[in-house]
Parts: sequence; C-alpha cells; structure tokens
Amino acid sequence: MQIAMLQDKIVPIEQLEPAYLDRGIFFGDGVYEVLRSYNGKIFALEEHMQRFANSLSAIEISGVDIYQILRRILKSFDAAGISNAKIYFHITRGSALRNHVCDANLEPNFFLTVTELEDDSEAKTKGIAVSTHPDWRWKRCDIKSLNLLANVLARQEAVKKNCAEAILVDEAGLITEGASSAFFAIFERVLQTTPLSANILPSITREFAIKAGKNIGLAIVEKSLTPKQANNADELFIAVTTKGIVPVVRFDEKPIGNGKPGKYTKSLAQEFLSFTV
Amino acid sequence: MQIAMLQDKIVPIEQLEPAYLDRGIFFGDGVYEVLRSYNGKIFALEEHMQRFANSLSAIEISGVDIYQILRRILKSFDAAGISNAKIYFHITRGSALRNHVCDANLEPNFFLTVTELEDDSEAKTKGIAVSTHPDWRWKRCDIKSLNLLANVLARQEAVKKNCAEAILVDEAGLITEGASSAFFAIFERVLQTTPLSANILPSITREFAIKAGKNIGLAIVEKSLTPKQANNADELFIAVTTKGIVPVVRFDEKPIGNGKPGKYTKSLAQEFLSFTV
Repeated sequence: MQIAMLQDKIVPIEQLEPAYLDRGIFFGDGVYEVLRSYNGKIFALEEHMQRFANSLSAIEISGVDIYQILRRILKSFDAAGISNAKIYFHITRGSALRNHVCDANLEPNFFLTVTELEDDSEAKTKGIAVSTHPDWRWKRCDIKSLNLLANVLARQEAVKKNCAEAILVDEAGLITEGASSAFFAIFERVLQTTPLSANILPSITREFAIKAGKNIGLAIVEKSLTPKQANNADELFIAVTTKGIVPVVRFDEKPIGNGKPGKYTKSLAQEFLSFTV
Repeated sequence: MQIAMLQDKIVPIEQLEPAYLDRGIFFGDGVYEVLRSYNGKIFALEEHMQRFANSLSAIEISGVDIYQILRRILKSFDAAGISNAKIYFHITRGSALRNHVCDANLEPNFFLTVTELEDDSEAKTKGIAVSTHPDWRWKRCDIKSLNLLANVLARQEAVKKNCAEAILVDEAGLITEGASSAFFAIFERVLQTTPLSANILPSITREFAIKAGKNIGLAIVEKSLTPKQANNADELFIAVTTKGIVPVVRFDEKPIGNGKPGKYTKSLAQEFLSFTV
C-alpha cells in the first residue's frame, strides 16, 4: 500500500490533500508576484501582471488565463477591503506524486493572500542597516520563481547582524541586488544601480525609482557596484514593492553620509509616492 | 479582513490549512532525501540520514530529532509493506504567513511518501540517452534542498529531446552532474567523475559506484569532464538512488562505444548490486 506520512500520522496516499503534493513544495516549480495598494489603489498592476506572464512563460507553465488571474486579484482585493494591502500570489505547475518530469496537462495551482501591510514608517524615516552576503541564487534571477532559499538564508544572516536587508554580492565581487529589493547608490547627482540581466529581477519598483530619479534631476547610470563603492556613496536606498523607497543609512556597519537618510533619497521617495496616487 | 484565495475560492486566512502556508512552497525552505529498498531492505540508510542531518544543519533548521525521523521512516516503510520501495521525505522550516524571516521557534513540517518503484529494467538493460543543459542551479548544490526548479527545467528540455536525463554543464564548460543523478565516464580502465564541491550533491550512490569501480579493478579519477570528453568516453553511466547504476548509450545524440551498455559498466552495476543485499 502506497502511503504518506504527515508528522507522525500515516495517511493512504489517495487520501492526501493535493496541497501536500504541490510541485511548488517538491521543486519550487512555480512563479509568484507581490502587489501592494496605496489607499485602496493597487500600484503598477499592469506591469506586475506582464512580469507574471513572462515568468509563467519562462518556466513553460501554460494554459493559465492571465485575465482570470487578474479577476481573482481584483475580487479578493475587494473582498478583503484593506486600504494598504499586500497581495501575494503564486501559480505552481500543479499537484502530482513527486517526479521531476510531469504530465503536461497537470492543472496549475493558484494561491493568493491579501494581508495588511506592516507599518514601515520607522524604516522610512530613520533608514535601515544592510549587510552584504554571497549571492548563492540560481542563474535565472530574472524569473520570479519560488526558488528562494538563497534569499532566505541571506536574510537570516542579515538579521543576525541586526540588518533589515541582505545585499547580495556575486562571485565577481559585484552587488547584484537585495535579497528582496533593488539596490541604489547616489554619488553627487548620479543615481547608480545594477543593469538588468539574468542575474537580477526586472524589479518594477526599480523602474519607478529610476523614473523618480530622472524627475528630480539625477543622472542615471546602470552599472554594477562593488561593496567598497557602495560604502563610499553619498546616499543609498533600496526599492521594494511593499515599502517603496527605503533609505539605507548603514552598509556593512559603516554609516552612509551622516548616518541619516540623504536629501536626494528623500526627494526621490516623495516623487515616487506621486506615482502611487 | 485578511483573506486567502485557492483557485477561485476565497478563504479567511485563519481557516487556511497549514499546508498552504508551508515555507517549502513559498521559498523552498526545506531539505529532502530519497531512499530505496531492495527486496525489503533499505539501502544505505545511515548514510542518507547523515546527509539529511547535514542538510538541516546547513540551512539552520534546528530542533529536529533525527532519530524520530528515522523511526518514522521505519514505521512507514513497515506499514507500506512494499519490497522495492521509494521513500521520499522532506522537512521544511514550518508554516507561517509569508515572510523571508520567520520566528525561530516555528515547528518544522515533516512529509514522507512510500511508493512502488517504477520498473527500470529496460533503462538498465538497453541504457539511456542523455542531453546536456546549462547548469542554472544555485551555488550550494551540496545542500539537498527543495530549490529544484533548474533541475526540473533541464529535465523538461531533456524529455523534449527524447532523453531520460539532463547532464548539467557549468559556465566553465564542465559537467557538474545529472539533474537528478551523478555522472560517470570510463576511459580504458579509468573511472572518471566530478570531484565533490559546493557545485554538486555529495551523492551516496556516487560513493558506492566509486567503491564498485575500485572493486572491479578500475582506477578512479575525480576530475571534471567537458561534454566533448564525455562524448569520446568508452562508456558512460549515471548513478541514482532509485535506480542504482544506469548505462548511458547516447550523449547529445552521439552513440557511446557501440551504442550498447559497456562491459565495465555492466560489471560495475553487478558489483554495486552486491552492496544492496
């Protein structure tokens, strides 16, 4: 008799809930997105849906109606009635007994949560500390997949150092991005960030941060930084969907500028907020 | 109200089954093992348990009693009563609302299945075809984690080429290992395979294959191969827990040797089987 075991409990395999046989858990065989709303309005919905469609296509999960997903998002957002909400959703290739190769007709699993955003006012007002960690991620970080253990491990190490984010550094000694954010430095009136490649996520908040930078008169340079260069920046910040622009005031224990959020970062964050209304 | 959505169904978040909030699915934040039995006897149980303990330690999942896991394995194997069984099990860091950083006291989730092994006699008698694919995996393949999307994608591509396994090639142009197997070449009386490093899994079947190779009089060389070198080998095979030693008779569409399982591979497979009784 084929069986499963959940903690100490034996279950006939036919009686197992499909959630336990999700290819998301066996392989991380799925892709996800995180949206947020500002005062009842979902930010950059179209851009996130486009990226989600790209991710599905990149890992060849087919047969997903992206407009159906959109309707589900809007329906659940309405049902939750949360003004400043975090919307997480993923699609996995489906549920089946574990085997790397699966039936092409497996029905994908959709999962979504709508939750209250955490209060991030302190992080945004005072800025955060970050620490660098080796970038152990896979070679297709342009795909927003459920393979995030390297990100989790880096964040765990950062927390041990009392840091709010881990900044990932590749084997060439260059910063790629944060474990769950895009990373920016300002030198005089130049805004610098990692160029898009297979090594980093095409972050949507990154695009809006660049736009905000241009709007406030900064020159944009898409070129990778070393940790040493970042340490010597006038200002640093991260950009992430759930929080927008967050000033970085300590980098590997060294204060950045005067140890307070920089003036261009503040101005850029203000400009960014204007996109969200 | 914080809510979740499963396919089209809205569920209050408090009523969600913990399986849907498993960090295994959100991040692949867990580690696994696969065991098999030969005629009612689990092969290399101790070695697998040691590796599993190493994996748990590497990603800092603590508080797992490895002997309790062992008892669960033996109990479920007995309950299933399958003579030639595949035993899969994983432990994830636990279930919680999605957040990269989690409560250190989260209770880990244990999941196991005991299933019938598929019939692999044809693969073993006739040999299999394999194809090469870029190794997109993360930089800690020595940890047997649930982040396996790169392996799945490579296997999917291999299947499209009518191949039974994907052989992964790193950015330096060197073969690391199969998507779910160790990879071996034989040149005259030399057995060659990738040395252990952070790039490959410390495969237990690999160790027994090396031992079998020594026993039949082959010299062992642990040195990475290029696909071109592999193409020119006298014999090739893969080693994997569920199947043991499987001859490779085609490599990227080119027949190996006379296109049939090689004599040393057959002899080594025979020797390997002697370890399993």
